[in-house]
Amino acid sequence: MSRTKYCGQITKKNIGETITLNGWVQKRRDLGGMIFIDLRDRTGLVQVVFNADEGNDLLQTAETLRAEHILEITGNVVERLEGAVNPNMATGEVEIEATELTVLNTSKTPPFEITDQINVSDDLRLKYRYIDLRRPRMQENIMIRHEVKKAIRHYLDDHGFIDIETPYLTKSTPEGARDYLVPSRVHQGKFFALPQSPQLFKQLLMSSGFDRYYQIVRCFRDEDLRGDRQPEFTQVDIETSFLSEEEIRENTEIMLKHVVKEVKGLEIKEAFPIITYDEAMNNYGSDKPDIRFEMKLKDVSSIVAKSDFRVFTSTIENGGSVKGLAVKGAADEFTRKQIDGLEEIAKVHGAKGLAWIKVTDKGLTGPISKFFAEEEMAKNLLDAMDAETGDLLLFVADKEKVTHDALGALRVHLGKELKLYDPEELAFIWVVDWPLLEFDEDENRYVAAHHPFTHPKPEDVDKLVTNPTEVYAQAYDIVLNGYEIGGGSIRIHEKELQEQMFEALGFTHKEAESQFGFLLNAFDYGFPPHGGIALGLDRLVMLLANEPNIREVIPFPKNGRAADPLTDAPAVVSDKQLQELALQVTKTPKKTDEKKDSE
Amino acid sequence: MSRTKYCGQITKKNIGETITLNGWVQKRRDLGGMIFIDLRDRTGLVQVVFNADEGNDLLQTAETLRAEHILEITGNVVERLEGAVNPNMATGEVEIEATELTVLNTSKTPPFEITDQINVSDDLRLKYRYIDLRRPRMQENIMIRHEVKKAIRHYLDDHGFIDIETPYLTKSTPEGARDYLVPSRVHQGKFFALPQSPQLFKQLLMSSGFDRYYQIVRCFRDEDLRGDRQPEFTQVDIETSFLSEEEIRENTEIMLKHVVKEVKGLEIKEAFPIITYDEAMNNYGSDKPDIRFEMKLKDVSSIVAKSDFRVFTSTIENGGSVKGLAVKGAADEFTRKQIDGLEEIAKVHGAKGLAWIKVTDKGLTGPISKFFAEEEMAKNLLDAMDAETGDLLLFVADKEKVTHDALGALRVHLGKELKLYDPEELAFIWVVDWPLLEFDEDENRYVAAHHPFTHPKPEDVDKLVTNPTEVYAQAYDIVLNGYEIGGGSIRIHEKELQEQMFEALGFTHKEAESQFGFLLNAFDYGFPPHGGIALGLDRLVMLLANEPNIREVIPFPKNGRAADPLTDAPAVVSDKQLQELALQVTKTPKKTDEKKDSE
Repeated sequence: MSRTKYCGQITKKNIGETITLNGWVQKRRDLGGMIFIDLRDRTGLVQVVFNADEGNDLLQTAETLRAEHILEITGNVVERLEGAVNPNMATGEVEIEATELTVLNTSKTPPFEITDQINVSDDLRLKYRYIDLRRPRMQENIMIRHEVKKAIRHYLDDHGFIDIETPYLTKSTPEGARDYLVPSRVHQGKFFALPQSPQLFKQLLMSSGFDRYYQIVRCFRDEDLRGDRQPEFTQVDIETSFLSEEEIRENTEIMLKHVVKEVKGLEIKEAFPIITYDEAMNNYGSDKPDIRFEMKLKDVSSIVAKSDFRVFTSTIENGGSVKGLAVKGAADEFTRKQIDGLEEIAKVHGAKGLAWIKVTDKGLTGPISKFFAEEEMAKNLLDAMDAETGDLLLFVADKEKVTHDALGALRVHLGKELKLYDPEELAFIWVVDWPLLEFDEDENRYVAAHHPFTHPKPEDVDKLVTNPTEVYAQAYDIVLNGYEIGGGSIRIHEKELQEQMFEALGFTHKEAESQFGFLLNAFDYGFPPHGGIALGLDRLVMLLANEPNIREVIPFPKNGRAADPLTDAPAVVSDKQLQELALQVTKTPKKTDEKKDSE
Repeated sequence: MSRTKYCGQITKKNIGETITLNGWVQKRRDLGGMIFIDLRDRTGLVQVVFNADEGNDLLQTAETLRAEHILEITGNVVERLEGAVNPNMATGEVEIEATELTVLNTSKTPPFEITDQINVSDDLRLKYRYIDLRRPRMQENIMIRHEVKKAIRHYLDDHGFIDIETPYLTKSTPEGARDYLVPSRVHQGKFFALPQSPQLFKQLLMSSGFDRYYQIVRCFRDEDLRGDRQPEFTQVDIETSFLSEEEIRENTEIMLKHVVKEVKGLEIKEAFPIITYDEAMNNYGSDKPDIRFEMKLKDVSSIVAKSDFRVFTSTIENGGSVKGLAVKGAADEFTRKQIDGLEEIAKVHGAKGLAWIKVTDKGLTGPISKFFAEEEMAKNLLDAMDAETGDLLLFVADKEKVTHDALGALRVHLGKELKLYDPEELAFIWVVDWPLLEFDEDENRYVAAHHPFTHPKPEDVDKLVTNPTEVYAQAYDIVLNGYEIGGGSIRIHEKELQEQMFEALGFTHKEAESQFGFLLNAFDYGFPPHGGIALGLDRLVMLLANEPNIREVIPFPKNGRAADPLTDAPAVVSDKQLQELALQVTKTPKKTDEKKDSE
């Protein structure tokens, strides 16, 4: 007997039909000589009834059913009695009167319930991920991920893009994040690296003339983990030839709107706003602004420079700036203690302190208000802050980077805490005109803001050698609700310019040759102008699923210590395996300590 | 100015239009004050004409053009003069009169021409793979690969399958081929392994209730390379719950027919033939029979046992068999020397020799014919061999495995050499009812014929402990033109049976627990009956593209020494990288020796 229906799809239209279902027992209730179970499959639940009419054998088997037993049931779809209709259940108007029952497999009591409300550690969820994935929310997340990929692929397939695979066993390059290495057995002492992105291969495919490439591809970075980082992550990788920056952004935007429409049923009609990197930093203190709410940063340096408040004036004299946020109508809401809490956040992000003023109907109040009491100064300050009576003004005085980081973080915190936006809203924005390089204090050299293959703005090319920090790039990020979900650029396709770029990054000619010689070579043989974008699939799905962490949308993620509690990977391997690779481990591996791992 | 057309798409319908093209110079010809170039993009070629009418600047720039320069051209589509039409070119009826020309990039003379006829080493092709991929045949192969994946995905998306990703950083398991290892930095001394297939994860997804899973996924095996093996390869991975073996095969078959229709425009109406493993071995000497031609193996043991030919009779007495092939009409065609060549092939596959008889109008001839001259013996032999006058009969006497291997290889060789089939034909066949286990002489234990998770035929379960070699499996391979393009099975979902299977494979209870404990655990919590299939995408595309080697359909393959001549991977890494991983290399890596690598 083969399944004829999924549980969640049965409606009143099926009344009178005899159907066969497969599924898991969600729960069992015994009532007045009858047994009711909710049967679950990937589409939802349906109620099945066993009663004595069909003989005692059936009822006796039904009595043995426990949660998570797997059944094959044949029965008749009947309408529920009026009082028994369950409006909270999609199939709540019907039930199945079972005539046949086969128990396909049994189950121990699972370590946690198959419901969305569970209170167990992340590691327990990951150790039993196959059970965790049965929960409705996780089932939905996996389906959303599938739908997102499907919508992306269908869009790209329909628009002349070719899905081309690039290698996973490739070469380690020291530029960028740390590589995962793969020792070679045939070439002992040498290593492959897992790709951080297929960047160079997709550029080479442009040289081959493929013109519109895409790939949904796994990428790897051996970095310390954060909430939205995983050792392996999935990238929607796109590259094109002969298109302008604007054309690439337009194509990406149409694709993202298509995804939102297919997956969420929402039609975004307006063009995504475009903001420059400098504007984003100045207005939002962030290169990934959350534009679901206003509360922009305001520069009050020129006004407070005239005050007698030494903290502000000396910062400005030393080349720093004073910027602020006006928290609308919050003057009465925030206690001193709460403001201390905000100051803590500012300090975590590098600020030395957080100055504040309340705008009350009695004028400015708060510890530093006396420095700004003079009427014109007060008026100018309120004008600059776009502030009115009832607002709480927060200020950070520091180097510009610190004021941006601290106020940007405060802004995001306040937006969430004060519920300044609809959590269901999807607010996309392009951030363009990035700096090409940034100075890395640790390495004491310039590093690429995006990557070393990013094309400078044509008008800035001459400054690459003379004034590297003044060079802007043909680079763009796409941001959704304050998360960077993708970034791209026009790439360098001129050999000389690429060599200049490597020089600006402090590579010797020999280093550039040994690491990127094959790319420099390729520039000699008809390399077209090209550019593209890479989207972080995990983050995009996380935001569309309204989840706080990418782990919730990755079927089998690693935990916070880059390990998998399910399979116990990574694990010790045999001496024979190491010998074949000509490798020796120089430290005794620690025994797995589950308690530690789950911290 | 943005491209308005692709080169290969311009037809007489476009005459009179002004268009802009981007592409590579395929060749330049100067003729009577005019310059002609063939411009190439991924869709094909079109002829562009530069003449003095448009001013000398244009002509002067055109004079600088060389092969593989990249151009942007604007011009008018005109009809070619009658004598100038090129019937060998899709766009041969038109040409473009250029009015504007921009050279977007130049090119050195490439290391080989962009044509299908090149005579260079594989390593040179791989070192310049981005140029190699410009050749028409390679462009077509990459497009076919894309079309195959697209057809598979669309079919599966439309039939309720969910694309779910599984980890690439997972656990090493000693069963199966050799793993590629990935050292962990966070857990020094421990290793991830790259997956040989997502087998266990897809089974766990069935436990999670996803019911119909697919993934087009990279897999990794660190084995010595052959023509159709690569360190990384791509698998179309499918798993389902609650379906029978027949239902899974049927679904796969419909999908493959859909692929053939979409990619080749061919409609295969007949059901794929189904043959058992035993029949395949007996009739074709192979578990992946090429059924595009007949020439089946015939068992003549019972007949020749009565002869006086000691080689045959003693083989049979020792438990071996004598089998033969009748090569139709080949008696006159094959010289003694050519038959010696066939014998060499038989010997490569383990045979001690190859006996032969020619069926001529004067009776049987050849060195051993005297043993079979007696009339009834001769008649019986010819009947058994399905032979007639003019045929060449080839015999191998040995253990059954050797007769099958040797004659199977001879059959494939002769089918190709004698052109017994249309090379464009696509002949699919299912091979079912595989043995569950085979005895591995090297390891002196049973190993799984497919893998340790394959379900025995229900009627054979009891023999798993008592008579393991007599147990057949619910396993099936799909074969195309003599290549195994996929294999699958119903999996074990019962804990006790899985434990018995591990026992039959010689695992101690502890070994089974430490390696597969998470799977055994999962069986405790409502694991549904399930099964699936995995198709080798590279081989499938190779066969659909009519290529002899999967390297021709993989964008960036490794060479025969598991290295990449393009990026020079694998490569030596820095001491810092090794220290972070707590690893020491125990051998000095060899310097890259290109000559050796390209041998």
